[in-house]
Amino acid sequence: MTYGTIATWRMAHEGVIKATELLKKQKSAGDAVETLINRVEAYPYYKSVGYGGLPNEQGVVEMDAAFMNGDDLAIGAVAGIQNVKHAVSVARKLSKLHFNSFRVGEGATRYAIQNDFEMVNMLTPRAKKIWQNRLLEIQEKKLDPYDGHDTVGAITLDQQGSMAAATSTSGLFMKKPGRIGDSPLSGSGFYVDSEVGGAAATGLGEDLMKGCLSYEIVRLMAEGRTPQQACDQAVYPFIEKLQKRYGKAGEFSLVAMNKAGAWGVATNVEFTFSVGNDKQVPVILMANPGPDQTTCIEPITQAWLDAYEKRIKAPIKSL
Amino acid sequence: MTYGTIATWRMAHEGVIKATELLKKQKSAGDAVETLINRVEAYPYYKSVGYGGLPNEQGVVEMDAAFMNGDDLAIGAVAGIQNVKHAVSVARKLSKLHFNSFRVGEGATRYAIQNDFEMVNMLTPRAKKIWQNRLLEIQEKKLDPYDGHDTVGAITLDQQGSMAAATSTSGLFMKKPGRIGDSPLSGSGFYVDSEVGGAAATGLGEDLMKGCLSYEIVRLMAEGRTPQQACDQAVYPFIEKLQKRYGKAGEFSLVAMNKAGAWGVATNVEFTFSVGNDKQVPVILMANPGPDQTTCIEPITQAWLDAYEKRIKAPIKSL
Repeated sequence: MTYGTIATWRMAHEGVIKATELLKKQKSAGDAVETLINRVEAYPYYKSVGYGGLPNEQGVVEMDAAFMNGDDLAIGAVAGIQNVKHAVSVARKLSKLHFNSFRVGEGATRYAIQNDFEMVNMLTPRAKKIWQNRLLEIQEKKLDPYDGHDTVGAITLDQQGSMAAATSTSGLFMKKPGRIGDSPLSGSGFYVDSEVGGAAATGLGEDLMKGCLSYEIVRLMAEGRTPQQACDQAVYPFIEKLQKRYGKAGEFSLVAMNKAGAWGVATNVEFTFSVGNDKQVPVILMANPGPDQTTCIEPITQAWLDAYEKRIKAPIKSL
Repeated sequence: MTYGTIATWRMAHEGVIKATELLKKQKSAGDAVETLINRVEAYPYYKSVGYGGLPNEQGVVEMDAAFMNGDDLAIGAVAGIQNVKHAVSVARKLSKLHFNSFRVGEGATRYAIQNDFEMVNMLTPRAKKIWQNRLLEIQEKKLDPYDGHDTVGAITLDQQGSMAAATSTSGLFMKKPGRIGDSPLSGSGFYVDSEVGGAAATGLGEDLMKGCLSYEIVRLMAEGRTPQQACDQAVYPFIEKLQKRYGKAGEFSLVAMNKAGAWGVATNVEFTFSVGNDKQVPVILMANPGPDQTTCIEPITQAWLDAYEKRIKAPIKSL
């Protein structure tokens, strides 16, 4: 039977491998997507998600996450949650509730504590050093404080035909306290319907939420578009619209998978992602915007992977 | 030139009158919608919005609000904000920022303080008494704690052809701390595009966000549907879908207006709203679900209005 997983960024790859193994063994789409995101959350060298995620301007790691069940459309989400190791697992648990399934700030953190989720100081010494350096740089060089906001967003399809979507992020580096982006917002950061397919986003949340692009991609798939057509047709015209109407558009990258395990992506920047299904072992690919509102997809090179590995683990010198 | 306003619930009526006056004088859609919502926020007898709004289960009034500019699609939002008299005005100010325009929890409250917004204890003696009584009732009669979650949501169209949308709510009565609904979520609680029209929602946020109905209504209007067709076609099939897939559907009521000032509503409960434009002085109307996925709209009766007035001002006896 068909199964599959797609997720944003190279950082998701080990999680995609694990999720694909689970799906091959007929595990559920919900378990697979949670396991995938948990892997990214736990890896300290990914500086935009979970443990090791970069803090807000005050040095506090505030996280946003969501989970959606494509069978019954149930959604759970948290935003501005602190000190919890696996924000997406809190979101998944909340998705079982009919009321109070989206919690923010201290209420979200307290829910996690009261429900026995593992709490940990999410500010790693490495992330703290990056934050301290950035504070100095901003003061000295008047740099733009906002840089780096790579959400892990994933869609899974299991052999029973169920689908799930999930996201997790520490949000914009140097964000203002309490700032949230699109990642926990249904329709913007994610959307999934097991009878159609799902989509998830990464990029500048403030602009992504102006377009409800994850919902729009799923809707276009419901109308009969392939995932790639749906991504191209939802994302590129909206970026043009935003440039015309708002004067600019932030970084946008979206991934999608339909109920047959076919997939698509669209992006306005260099964008890596990982995808696997019953026909294809998980692989990291690179996407770039192509001509005429299309997307160029090519294999990742070993040179790119080596440089990435070196970059994320490079020693951080104190300024 | 054309102008118009539509807003959810009878409570919005005085605000709709004021907004319509402003629009008649060629004021902007943004000013009109903020003024409308501010009126509702300031009136102590409306127990689901602003001052006098009902608190969460711990007795804390936590508010959610959003503002969207239909010209440039800019969005500002706050969720779980406390002690601020006009949450929607904070949201509107945030909508001017490209980054950090959606703030939750303590970060949202601090932003309001640092930006000189009027702070006030939002828990009126009346709301406190209702809350204390409900705590007792829940203990004694094992009542469902969730009841009353009427958001004010509004769309305005000005004579310059600009449109705006805004929402404000204290959310579910007896909600868990940090719970947020659809009101601050783009595409679910509200959406507006000056080249098409806008929509806003009230009802059970946890279910509304499963469908991104405000976005979907605007999209259907962009495809050529009238506001009434768009409301009917977006809302009723989704309620059926939710009943089938999720097993139930909460209360849903949506209002819409297009760029010509035409309007529509859809609802699965008895629902009052207020609407005015250049051809029609503001009027309170009542909507109910009709046959075959349509909406029945009729004038409000004086008896209903009298009973409403009496109900919202009835003395609260301590249990």
